[in-house]
Amino acid sequence: MLTIDIIKAKQLKDKPDPNNLGFGNYFTDHMFVMDYQEGMGWHNPRVKPYEDLHLDPSAVVFHYGQEMFEGLKAYRRQDGEINLFRPDMNGKRLNNTNDRICMPQIPVEDFVQAVRTLVHTDASWVPEEAGTSLYIRPFVIATEPTLMVNPSKSYLFMIILSPVGAYYKEGLNPVRIYVEDTYVRASKGGVGEAKTGGSYGASMIAQKNAKNEGFAQVLWLDAIEHRYVEEVGTMNIFFKIRGKVYTPALSGSILPGITRDSVISLLKSWDIPIYEERISMDTIIEASKNGDLEEVFGTGTAAVISPVGGIHFKGLDFVVHNNEIGPITRRIYDTLTGMQYGNVKDDFGWIETIEDKNDHGWL
Amino acid sequence: MLTIDIIKAKQLKDKPDPNNLGFGNYFTDHMFVMDYQEGMGWHNPRVKPYEDLHLDPSAVVFHYGQEMFEGLKAYRRQDGEINLFRPDMNGKRLNNTNDRICMPQIPVEDFVQAVRTLVHTDASWVPEEAGTSLYIRPFVIATEPTLMVNPSKSYLFMIILSPVGAYYKEGLNPVRIYVEDTYVRASKGGVGEAKTGGSYGASMIAQKNAKNEGFAQVLWLDAIEHRYVEEVGTMNIFFKIRGKVYTPALSGSILPGITRDSVISLLKSWDIPIYEERISMDTIIEASKNGDLEEVFGTGTAAVISPVGGIHFKGLDFVVHNNEIGPITRRIYDTLTGMQYGNVKDDFGWIETIEDKNDHGWL
Ligand SMILES: Cc1ncc(COP(=O)(O)O)c(C=O)c1O
Ligand SMILES: Cc1ncc(COP(=O)(O)O)c(C=O)c1O
Repeated sequence: MLTIDIIKAKQLKDKPDPNNLGFGNYFTDHMFVMDYQEGMGWHNPRVKPYEDLHLDPSAVVFHYGQEMFEGLKAYRRQDGEINLFRPDMNGKRLNNTNDRICMPQIPVEDFVQAVRTLVHTDASWVPEEAGTSLYIRPFVIATEPTLMVNPSKSYLFMIILSPVGAYYKEGLNPVRIYVEDTYVRASKGGVGEAKTGGSYGASMIAQKNAKNEGFAQVLWLDAIEHRYVEEVGTMNIFFKIRGKVYTPALSGSILPGITRDSVISLLKSWDIPIYEERISMDTIIEASKNGDLEEVFGTGTAAVISPVGGIHFKGLDFVVHNNEIGPITRRIYDTLTGMQYGNVKDDFGWIETIEDKNDHGWL
Repeated sequence: MLTIDIIKAKQLKDKPDPNNLGFGNYFTDHMFVMDYQEGMGWHNPRVKPYEDLHLDPSAVVFHYGQEMFEGLKAYRRQDGEINLFRPDMNGKRLNNTNDRICMPQIPVEDFVQAVRTLVHTDASWVPEEAGTSLYIRPFVIATEPTLMVNPSKSYLFMIILSPVGAYYKEGLNPVRIYVEDTYVRASKGGVGEAKTGGSYGASMIAQKNAKNEGFAQVLWLDAIEHRYVEEVGTMNIFFKIRGKVYTPALSGSILPGITRDSVISLLKSWDIPIYEERISMDTIIEASKNGDLEEVFGTGTAAVISPVGGIHFKGLDFVVHNNEIGPITRRIYDTLTGMQYGNVKDDFGWIETIEDKNDHGWL
């Protein structure tokens, strides 16, 4: 158990219009900070007013990208309490990432406690409008002032919070995705299965090119043969072909999404066949041509489920099931969001509740 | 031409012991800063006192690794003036990197002017002891406060300076390198040929493992077959086999080193055959077994030339030429350092001089 100091902000911010939040534009009144120093370990956990960081220009994070982040959400239930969805999974993934990029471990209980404490402090920022939520961004950065390419001797673990809008304002909508066959997101032996900043900066160029050509997201292929499907932007991907559901196996270059893991569990509980496999673009294209490609969807914390209506590969367009949303896509979306907002019973032990007996109102 | 404001530090720091500088531990009195804002472009170039950066915790650089750096050196000549070595090449490489990670271009002349102005301001920090120099670290970081995975709309371009010690205190010394066959530094389509932070954070684990087993550096292999040589830590690599010199071709996953480029030009001017090729570990091992592996050396700004005396690959050790420094390794080292410190004539137009008529002394 951490003993977390809570230093309250003297002046609270005005809340933004809950119908125009977008994603990651507004930040709450407080943030969580904990320091690490070699020899001392993690110390001084505190909730304090949200404010600028002061860092030496030589801090390792600015030069060698020794940094990682996580992402989860807090959901406002109709009874006024607040739900978290599997925060322990984010804590576990954080530690896997930290191992990969030589940053120190944080006990999962401490991670979850820090998340709960900060969300509780800024509970009034969890919006109530349908589909909105409070996005939670834990991250760790290397702060040692040195130009040596070595693991830093000091770090900051921080959590910031951002109220975010409904991902689908006009309901679920199928998107078109662009299969990237030049740029590569990650290779086996690299950092693709870790949630470290560098992979995201490196992916921006492909995402920008795809957007310019009218596509919502990039579908990444493997680094070696440019043939096997990996994942989509910030989502994992699923294909339903003739009643069976397939998703790329966690081969070492794919982020192990928590939504992905949850979707696999749901499908199993519904007795829908689900396979974690290597999936080639040939298989997808053939299934599309034969009319067997019944559903395609991305999974991730931001959108929960993103139905895919079209796939663009090497200059050709392949339609997924008449660009309609399939029944399994819909059922997963309804079930997961239902659990998250407290309207569907959770038989998996995925939901943790934070009491918010105070006036929790947005204003 | 930039109009650079110069705001002098009120209090100057004490200089460290020039015989114990190490690398990247001490920073000078001033730094260069220039702001970028979408719609305004680069503006407000200034030299100001070295001090902490103040950044929003949501700044893109902390989350998505949108950052890059360069590295070059200023050398104190015996006549008291200061030399730079091919700073325009660093400016060009900076712009190639910026293209890859969606950051704005900086005109090469502006880059060089900023370097010259800052070094001139802190000229008293260019040490005089044999082998020491002033390391110059230009870098660009993404500063927009947003959690969107998109290119930032604002950036800082900065330069900081660090006096660094002689790389070889007891003269050139051959090192043993570890050939990494699990972790991968970069793959074609990735960011290996760009100088962006993420690749360095990602490489720390392999470097740490190699150090723990007594090796100085990691030799990276290609991401696909784990068979072809790429580069070493922060150096490019050269092999001399039966009188011919080979270095891996710039295939897209290797950093185009400025020392590498200079060494190729030198070898050509000396009529020594030099080939940029794909080089497999099989070739190296066979050459070592046959006694044909005459010289191996790394090239980079930090060490100039690093002779390699032993190569460890899949549990076996291969010796390079009795662990002795070869004649070409020595000749390149003497020529390049001679040019850099102003003792050898520069026939290539690589040297730029900064006048330091003032009291340039270290104290
Ligand atoms: C690259 C990548 N893949 C997949 C995901 C989906 O993961 P999760 O379901 O845990 O949000 C994310 C988002 O975190 C991601 O960044
Ligand atoms: C990965 C890598 N390779 C090679 C080099 C050598 O490049 P240069 O000769 O320009 O210093 C560096 C250092 O900059 C590097 O970081």
